[in-house]
Amino acid sequence: MTDWRTQIDAAADRIDAYIVRTPVLKLDAFDLGYPVEIKLEQMQHTGSFKARGAFNNLLTRDVPRVGIVAASGGNHGAAVAFAARTLGYKARIYVPEIAGPAKIALIERTGADLHVIPGTYANALEAAQHYEAETGAIQIHAYDAMETVVGQGTLAREWQAQGLEADTVIIAVGGGGLIGGALAWFGGVRRVIAVEPVQAATLHTALQHGPETAVEVSGVAANALGARQIGRIAYDLAQQHLTASMTVTDEAIIAAQRALWIHARQLTEPAGAVALAALTSGEYQPEPDEKVAILICGGNIAPDPLA
Amino acid sequence: MTDWRTQIDAAADRIDAYIVRTPVLKLDAFDLGYPVEIKLEQMQHTGSFKARGAFNNLLTRDVPRVGIVAASGGNHGAAVAFAARTLGYKARIYVPEIAGPAKIALIERTGADLHVIPGTYANALEAAQHYEAETGAIQIHAYDAMETVVGQGTLAREWQAQGLEADTVIIAVGGGGLIGGALAWFGGVRRVIAVEPVQAATLHTALQHGPETAVEVSGVAANALGARQIGRIAYDLAQQHLTASMTVTDEAIIAAQRALWIHARQLTEPAGAVALAALTSGEYQPEPDEKVAILICGGNIAPDPLA
Repeated sequence: MTDWRTQIDAAADRIDAYIVRTPVLKLDAFDLGYPVEIKLEQMQHTGSFKARGAFNNLLTRDVPRVGIVAASGGNHGAAVAFAARTLGYKARIYVPEIAGPAKIALIERTGADLHVIPGTYANALEAAQHYEAETGAIQIHAYDAMETVVGQGTLAREWQAQGLEADTVIIAVGGGGLIGGALAWFGGVRRVIAVEPVQAATLHTALQHGPETAVEVSGVAANALGARQIGRIAYDLAQQHLTASMTVTDEAIIAAQRALWIHARQLTEPAGAVALAALTSGEYQPEPDEKVAILICGGNIAPDPLA
Repeated sequence: MTDWRTQIDAAADRIDAYIVRTPVLKLDAFDLGYPVEIKLEQMQHTGSFKARGAFNNLLTRDVPRVGIVAASGGNHGAAVAFAARTLGYKARIYVPEIAGPAKIALIERTGADLHVIPGTYANALEAAQHYEAETGAIQIHAYDAMETVVGQGTLAREWQAQGLEADTVIIAVGGGGLIGGALAWFGGVRRVIAVEPVQAATLHTALQHGPETAVEVSGVAANALGARQIGRIAYDLAQQHLTASMTVTDEAIIAAQRALWIHARQLTEPAGAVALAALTSGEYQPEPDEKVAILICGGNIAPDPLA
C-alpha cells in the first residue's frame, strides 16, 4: 500500500523553491447563502496546478541529454516546458490544435520545442509516445504517473497548512492527476467531490462502467479537462476515497466563470470555474452546517483579454 | 493628535462582517530578481478597496431617511452603492462620463440611483454637493473624510495580521484615502512609497507646490486615480510619514498590467497595476536585502473581458 502522505511530504520539500504558494480566501459573494473557501491555484506558474507535478517529475527522475517529452491539452505542456527551462533541460511538447492560440503562445514563450498536432489530446499523446520510443526522451505523463499525482497532491497539503476549514473540497477532474493528488492527501479526512463537464465526464463514466471506459470529449473545457479515459491511479483512489462524482453543463460552467469575474474579479478559463459551477448550479447542495471549499485550477483563458 | 491605530482597530471590528479578507501571496515571477509580496484587494466587494471606507462611513454616521450621496470616478460609487444596499439605505451616486460603461454597469447592478455627469470627477462632486445641500442626504467623501481614511486603513492592519514581511509597501495614489489609511497604520513602522501616473500626479505635485495645488488629470488610470487635488488628511499624513513619492508613465502602467496577467493571472484595471509599475519600470529599485510589497487596489477593467 502506497504511503501517500509521506510521498507528498517529500514532494512538497522537493518542489518548494520552484512553485508559488498560491493564496486562499473565504468569500460570501456568490448569492449562495453561505461562504466558500477558495484557493487561487491559477496563480501558479504558467497558470495552473500542473507546475507542481512537472517539477516533481523533473526533480525525481533521471533526465537524459535528449531531454523530456510531454503531450498536453495546453496547461500540462506549458508547465513541463516552464519546469524544464527553469531546471535547464530540453523539452519537446506535443499539443492538439484544440489547445488554442493562447495556450500555444504560453508554451512558445518558454522556448520549448513545440509541435501542434491535428485532432485531440489522444493524438498528441500518440505523437509524444512515438518520440519517446524513438529518442529515449523521458515522458512526463499529464496525469497517470505517480510523480505527477504526488506532485499535484502537494496542493492539498499546502491548502491544509494554510488553514483550510472545509469539510468538503470540490475539485474539477480531467485525467485525474489533480483529483488523485487531492484524494491521496485528503482521503478519509475530508469529503472530496469530483466535478466534470457533462461533455467530458471521464471519471463519472468510468465509475459507472469500469476504468477502461473511454468517452467522447467536447465543450468549453475540453482543452483542459478533455482526457478521454481516467488515469488508473486516480480511478483506484476514487474507488477508495471519493465522496461523490457529478457533472455540470457548459452553460453552468460559463455562468460560474462569469460569477468568478463579477463577484471575485478572478478571470479563469472555463475549466477553472467547474468546481464553483457545482455550487452555483445547485448540482451540489451542502448541508446547513457543512463548510465547503472550491479550487480554481486554471486561468489560461482564450482569447488573451489584453491582446 | 489623532490616535490612528485605535481608530483603525475600531473600524476593523465595525466592518469585519461586511468585507472580504483579501488574499495575500509572495511571488517571484516578474523577472525582477527578487520576490514581491502582493495583496489582492481587487477581490474586495465591488472590485476595489473602497468598500472598506464605504462601510465604515455608513456604520459610523447617522443616515437620514433621504439616504446617502456620493461622487465617484466609479469605484467609490460602486462601493457606496453596495454598502448602502447591504445595510438597507438609499444611495444616489454621481459619476463622470469617464467612469466608463463597465464601472457604470457595476453601480447599476446595485440598484443605486445613478446619475452620469458630463466632465470629470470634479463635476460629479459638484453635483453631489448640490444634492447634499438641497436634500440633507449625507455625503460619503471618496477620500478626504476621517471615516473614509480610517476605513481604508483597515487594509493595512489586515495585511499586517496576515504576516506581511515587507520593509517597504508600495501603494497607488488617487485622492489619498488609501495612502492616507496606509500611512496612518504603517507610518513610522514600515516604509511607504506613493506611486501616481505622470498624468495624474496629484500628491507628487502637492508635495512640491503645496496642498492646495490642483493638477490636470488624464491617461489610462484617470477614472480611478483622477482626483485633481490631494485630500488634506492624506497630505498631512504624507508630510509626516511618507518615505517617497514617485510617478510612472502610462506605458509603464500598461506593461505592469500585462505582467500581472501574464505572470500572475490577475487581470486588473490600469490603476490596479500602478504600484507594480514602480518596480517593473525600475522607477523604484529596492536595496539588495529590502523586502517589498505591492497592493493591487482595483480590478474594474473596461471593457468587461467576458462581455
